[in-house]
Amino acid sequence: MKEFQLIEKYFLNRGQKRRDVLLDIGDDCALVEPASGKSIAISCDTLVEGVHFFADMPAHALGYKSLAVNLSDLAAMGAEPAWMTLALSLPNVDEQWLSEFSNGLFEAAEYYQVALIGGDTTRGPRCINITINGQVPKGKALKRSAAKVGDWIYVTGTLGDSALGLDLLRGVYQVAPQFKDYLLNRHYYPTPRVLAGQSLRGLASSAIDLSDGLVSDIGHILKASNVGAVIDANQIPISTALASCVSEEQALAYALTGGEDYELLFTVPESERGAIDTALLHAGVKFVKIGQICAGDKLKFTLDGKPFTPDFKGFEHF
Amino acid sequence: MKEFQLIEKYFLNRGQKRRDVLLDIGDDCALVEPASGKSIAISCDTLVEGVHFFADMPAHALGYKSLAVNLSDLAAMGAEPAWMTLALSLPNVDEQWLSEFSNGLFEAAEYYQVALIGGDTTRGPRCINITINGQVPKGKALKRSAAKVGDWIYVTGTLGDSALGLDLLRGVYQVAPQFKDYLLNRHYYPTPRVLAGQSLRGLASSAIDLSDGLVSDIGHILKASNVGAVIDANQIPISTALASCVSEEQALAYALTGGEDYELLFTVPESERGAIDTALLHAGVKFVKIGQICAGDKLKFTLDGKPFTPDFKGFEHF
Repeated sequence: MKEFQLIEKYFLNRGQKRRDVLLDIGDDCALVEPASGKSIAISCDTLVEGVHFFADMPAHALGYKSLAVNLSDLAAMGAEPAWMTLALSLPNVDEQWLSEFSNGLFEAAEYYQVALIGGDTTRGPRCINITINGQVPKGKALKRSAAKVGDWIYVTGTLGDSALGLDLLRGVYQVAPQFKDYLLNRHYYPTPRVLAGQSLRGLASSAIDLSDGLVSDIGHILKASNVGAVIDANQIPISTALASCVSEEQALAYALTGGEDYELLFTVPESERGAIDTALLHAGVKFVKIGQICAGDKLKFTLDGKPFTPDFKGFEHF
Repeated sequence: MKEFQLIEKYFLNRGQKRRDVLLDIGDDCALVEPASGKSIAISCDTLVEGVHFFADMPAHALGYKSLAVNLSDLAAMGAEPAWMTLALSLPNVDEQWLSEFSNGLFEAAEYYQVALIGGDTTRGPRCINITINGQVPKGKALKRSAAKVGDWIYVTGTLGDSALGLDLLRGVYQVAPQFKDYLLNRHYYPTPRVLAGQSLRGLASSAIDLSDGLVSDIGHILKASNVGAVIDANQIPISTALASCVSEEQALAYALTGGEDYELLFTVPESERGAIDTALLHAGVKFVKIGQICAGDKLKFTLDGKPFTPDFKGFEHF
């Protein structure tokens, strides 16, 4: 019966309340009332200890990040967050851990107005699975499959910080404290670009969130849209911290192949470039144009105006 | 990249197609179109190897049961199954296992018309989490909280078979082959009472599915509805197999406290008794009246017309 005690103490009656939740934790199912005129966007992500996070990851960060990575998927569809279920496997009942984990989870849930409507707590290896539901006006969802030749390619924020943060945890580098704090924060507390995603509806032709690294993730858009792309490596947005801590070449490798940035990559037709500038300004998110969709199926790079082939093999830790 | 290969081979483009699924596996989120006038029922269940199932459980049965236990939650709300996401953690890539698991999963999915719309496959200890979505006409969902004094208590099917099946796997008993097959089948392939649950809408005052055992599960209705109950132990439906394999007293203990029957327990006002008979006859499900809701907060039993206190302590394997 410990399962139910855990749920009641740390997860019941906490976090965001929503008027469209008719019944939450405590019955066989939760009941929610979808808004009329909207489709429901659904995604799920699992984080397994030893695979997706280290055993000593701070529980507050893990709670926050577990939800943030799911919110990032909604952001990439242009959907508004709504409801989530949490499946939590834990090897034992650690009240301190549960308190911090749930605080981190609900911090993100309240900020992004997500209601926890159900879940399942089981004894087992530490593992967190969240299934998230969002809503998006019918026909307005951002897909991966509609990028067109000539569309411009943009990304939000800066890239590569989270991957360097991970390497700091692994002890690969030692860096100055102010950079370390920033980089670990980017790794532990990614910012899902939820408002930016919604701002892109009707303007961007395609979008994806960068979870596995730019090179890998843009590949999904190219494949789904049956196009190629040219990226200007000089335009890849790199933070002061990343630029200060590693060589220029290493910084670019982190930015292009490091994962877990949870920034958005999206494509925009020439006709919507002005509108995108205005829309993202209102969303308060930095963004930059890094390339263009072209015919074919290849991903190419330029550096200083010349064709450029990044040598990712030199970075074996990826 | 093995993750994606697995998904593509065993889970993509398989199973039930639904017209209300706008986008399934392959983008950041799935997109579905909820029906107007309906609420969405959402539930999730996790099965962890070594906790919820033995390592040698046949993969086909595990795939089937993983979905069936979630469908049972929808049944208890009177909801129609619609969409599911699957989070699958596996320690290694075992093609034979994946083939059988997915065949079992899709067998249930096709029968109950559930579309697999998304998921996440990760390396880790073997663990299956399904989040299921169903739809139910607004205001018609069956809850745990509306049982009233005087309502009659019913259950579908027979109780205790699955728990004895589990004890056969544990080697607690040896029984005749024809009984063994039946009991293991009840344990491995529970029948979610999906049609029966829908038939109860507007007639039953409350409902729950029996996953933890009758005594434990009816407790949730009594607590949520703030009522008590009297159960006539002579009316508890016991299969020929269960009755043939163990003593009368043991059979009753299995039926009252054994889990994983996935039958429905529901309450019906006197005024709807005739309608319930007709409705469940059409659903093709056996059911029996086992007791009545009363004032107070206690669960009491009678046997042969006299007050009766089951001695569950004698059955330590529960």
